[in-house]
Amino acid sequence: MEVRLRAGALLRELKMGVTEEIAAFVVNTKFENLTERAVKEAKVCLLDWLGVCLAGSREPLAEILTRMFRTMPCEPQATVIGKGIKTSPLNAALANGAMSHALDFDDYLVYGLLHPSAPVWAAILPLAEWKGVSGRELIAAFVLGFEVESRISRILGKPLIDACFHPTGTIGTFAAAAGAGKALGLTRQQLIHAFGMAGTQAAGLIESFGSMSKPFHAGKAAMNGLLAAILAGEGFTGSEQMLDSERGFAQVLVKQDLRGITGGLGREYEIINNSYKPYPSCGATHAAIDAMLEIRRKYALQASQVREVSCKVCPVTIHVAGKSQPKTGLEGKFSLKFCLAAALTYGELSIDKFTEREVQRPEITGLMEKIQLIPKESYNSVSEAEVTAVTAAGDKYTHAVSWAKGTPQNPMTEEDMEKKFISLAELAVPRDKAGRVIELINRLDQLNEREVADLIGLCS
Amino acid sequence: MEVRLRAGALLRELKMGVTEEIAAFVVNTKFENLTERAVKEAKVCLLDWLGVCLAGSREPLAEILTRMFRTMPCEPQATVIGKGIKTSPLNAALANGAMSHALDFDDYLVYGLLHPSAPVWAAILPLAEWKGVSGRELIAAFVLGFEVESRISRILGKPLIDACFHPTGTIGTFAAAAGAGKALGLTRQQLIHAFGMAGTQAAGLIESFGSMSKPFHAGKAAMNGLLAAILAGEGFTGSEQMLDSERGFAQVLVKQDLRGITGGLGREYEIINNSYKPYPSCGATHAAIDAMLEIRRKYALQASQVREVSCKVCPVTIHVAGKSQPKTGLEGKFSLKFCLAAALTYGELSIDKFTEREVQRPEITGLMEKIQLIPKESYNSVSEAEVTAVTAAGDKYTHAVSWAKGTPQNPMTEEDMEKKFISLAELAVPRDKAGRVIELINRLDQLNEREVADLIGLCS
Repeated sequence: MEVRLRAGALLRELKMGVTEEIAAFVVNTKFENLTERAVKEAKVCLLDWLGVCLAGSREPLAEILTRMFRTMPCEPQATVIGKGIKTSPLNAALANGAMSHALDFDDYLVYGLLHPSAPVWAAILPLAEWKGVSGRELIAAFVLGFEVESRISRILGKPLIDACFHPTGTIGTFAAAAGAGKALGLTRQQLIHAFGMAGTQAAGLIESFGSMSKPFHAGKAAMNGLLAAILAGEGFTGSEQMLDSERGFAQVLVKQDLRGITGGLGREYEIINNSYKPYPSCGATHAAIDAMLEIRRKYALQASQVREVSCKVCPVTIHVAGKSQPKTGLEGKFSLKFCLAAALTYGELSIDKFTEREVQRPEITGLMEKIQLIPKESYNSVSEAEVTAVTAAGDKYTHAVSWAKGTPQNPMTEEDMEKKFISLAELAVPRDKAGRVIELINRLDQLNEREVADLIGLCS
Repeated sequence: MEVRLRAGALLRELKMGVTEEIAAFVVNTKFENLTERAVKEAKVCLLDWLGVCLAGSREPLAEILTRMFRTMPCEPQATVIGKGIKTSPLNAALANGAMSHALDFDDYLVYGLLHPSAPVWAAILPLAEWKGVSGRELIAAFVLGFEVESRISRILGKPLIDACFHPTGTIGTFAAAAGAGKALGLTRQQLIHAFGMAGTQAAGLIESFGSMSKPFHAGKAAMNGLLAAILAGEGFTGSEQMLDSERGFAQVLVKQDLRGITGGLGREYEIINNSYKPYPSCGATHAAIDAMLEIRRKYALQASQVREVSCKVCPVTIHVAGKSQPKTGLEGKFSLKFCLAAALTYGELSIDKFTEREVQRPEITGLMEKIQLIPKESYNSVSEAEVTAVTAAGDKYTHAVSWAKGTPQNPMTEEDMEKKFISLAELAVPRDKAGRVIELINRLDQLNEREVADLIGLCS
């Protein structure tokens, strides 16, 4: 009898498609099922995300979005971070997602080539204010949204980039739908439909990089995923096999099969593989910047002493961060040569370096001409680099980095993370509020619904 | 001197990319530049669109969207057609676009394989209420949005379908951005950015067909295009070469080149090629339905007399409307066999035939088994068909149709269009209001901003 039951369960499992299996996992996993490491990482992640979002609220795109919301007022149900206004949950998701990716200073997944937090936090925080969500529920929703995103990106990240789609915008929509669907308490069947709606809205082209539409992708992923979850909860229908079908998302965009993304679900959570940025530039520039700064520090090297610099990186790094003559601060973030020249010149790389003035400063552009990027095929991650500096006097200094600072293999410390948060947050809110945010996030898993709303209120 | 000036103009024109050329055309074309035929067709088109939208407001998806808006109240700036509520312009665009495509009874382009009106009217009517737009401005915005959509679809429609993207959802986003951008009075540069934002949001997969997400695509195209235009007007940026770049929309989705879509711009307007549906089913089923109804009428044929039916259509028709065992009314719309069986049984094909009960009725399914679909390679349009019915007595009746009723080559009369409108509108509003709508649309080009708002108010 028991054997027969087991065989039945196995049969059901074998017949279950990826969409159904992922939906079932999200619906059935509770806060209590999360590992301690995953919970801890979710808190780090929220702190980092709120910091970059607060700083992003001072960018021009945030001003434009806020102006639009003011002309189109909605019941103040959800906070636009750092802007002192509330609007509809859908609008708030759009703004918060876009602002938090505006500086390209938000977290990233080395293997998935995407920015995981923006679409998910931006989709679920409006729900926390609108529907009331406890700290534990918020953490579970985030970790599960991240899980869906991370697993899809492991297979689709690189092919999407190669095909000129933006993984954050496209895959992010599923993640936002999963997180929002969890926070809303959707049934399995409803979440399946939400995935259908997510896949059919998922968009974002690399063609937009260098314009405000890049961070806009993250905002739209949040908004569209939230919309999918809300509508599915009300009975709206979509494809029930968006992650399986030969006409589904992965097959149509990049001819990939997603079977295999569900292996080992729930054993550990992908969020523990998240990377955080010490520098506000493309994640692929980080290992080389680390190496450059280390050489400068160790040998007290000055920019004026340098005759030439060579930098070995994996080919994908040159593909995504190879801009040789950036014209704007935004383009500077995707110019490894600029990042290296600025790091060598200033001994650090903060957001105030990514301006039009800096990228066109003659001392910097002169230095950039001395830098050579060398693709190294044997590197298989954007997080590896080797930098060699040769001085006019003929001295030669080399430093290699296997894992950039901020990756899980070479993590930023708790102190680093808090320092980063404070420096960004205080661009938008008083320092005492920022300190209070850190305290509340540290005990996020104990906060009730009202306290979660208070936490968001501190960042309004 | 003049030669030099001309050469300069030519050079500029040669250097102008498709994105810039289309944007310049939309910005520079005024109501006064439209042909009389285009203006007349825009009125027919609005009447048809309002009718299908009013009827669509009685579909379950309309109920769900309205319920969501009620829980997320926004300043009542724009009407949700047929639902008696107002919401934000973005929400209204979403709802009106989705409702008007819900019955698959809205207009279509034979060559472009898309539904042109839904994304454009749904994007510009909220602007008419929000910003105040005169009848002439509304017509110009619509004709130009349609123009952009139609020209892109001439090249991309078929490849998008083949690649499993929905042309209405994807191309419709550009059309909505163009129409909304025109109504908002964007500059050329702003409209170029709006196209950038449109392309990077454009989405919709054929995988969604058969669910509510198919009409949702039309609503999202309207909403996303409107969002692109509003943000561009406020200074938001996107790619400036979305229709040209090798990383742009057409190249990334279907590896197509859009040069050539700008030839002869402004000589005549593509709206005169629009098709309207006498039957609420996939456009590709119409020619065969016409033939079946004609045989039934001409020979007073009854379903009970028929032994077999054969129906020759082009292969694409079978690809898009070949469902052999529809389970729902919605699927019945994409089942040519069902459409033929119902047409033969009832002698007409109204919206009340597309129900679960009808598609599963034994008399109908019995008849469907007697019908054979034959792909005919020499047909190059979904608007051709030949039907042959053989009776039990051995009589054989054949009728061929080159252009389905409702195409520009075989147009519905003014009376047909008004009859269709009244029959649909009265599902949602009193008959006297419907009559008043017809009157107002007939003199749409003379209506001022307030009267345009009144017209929309009649359909609220």
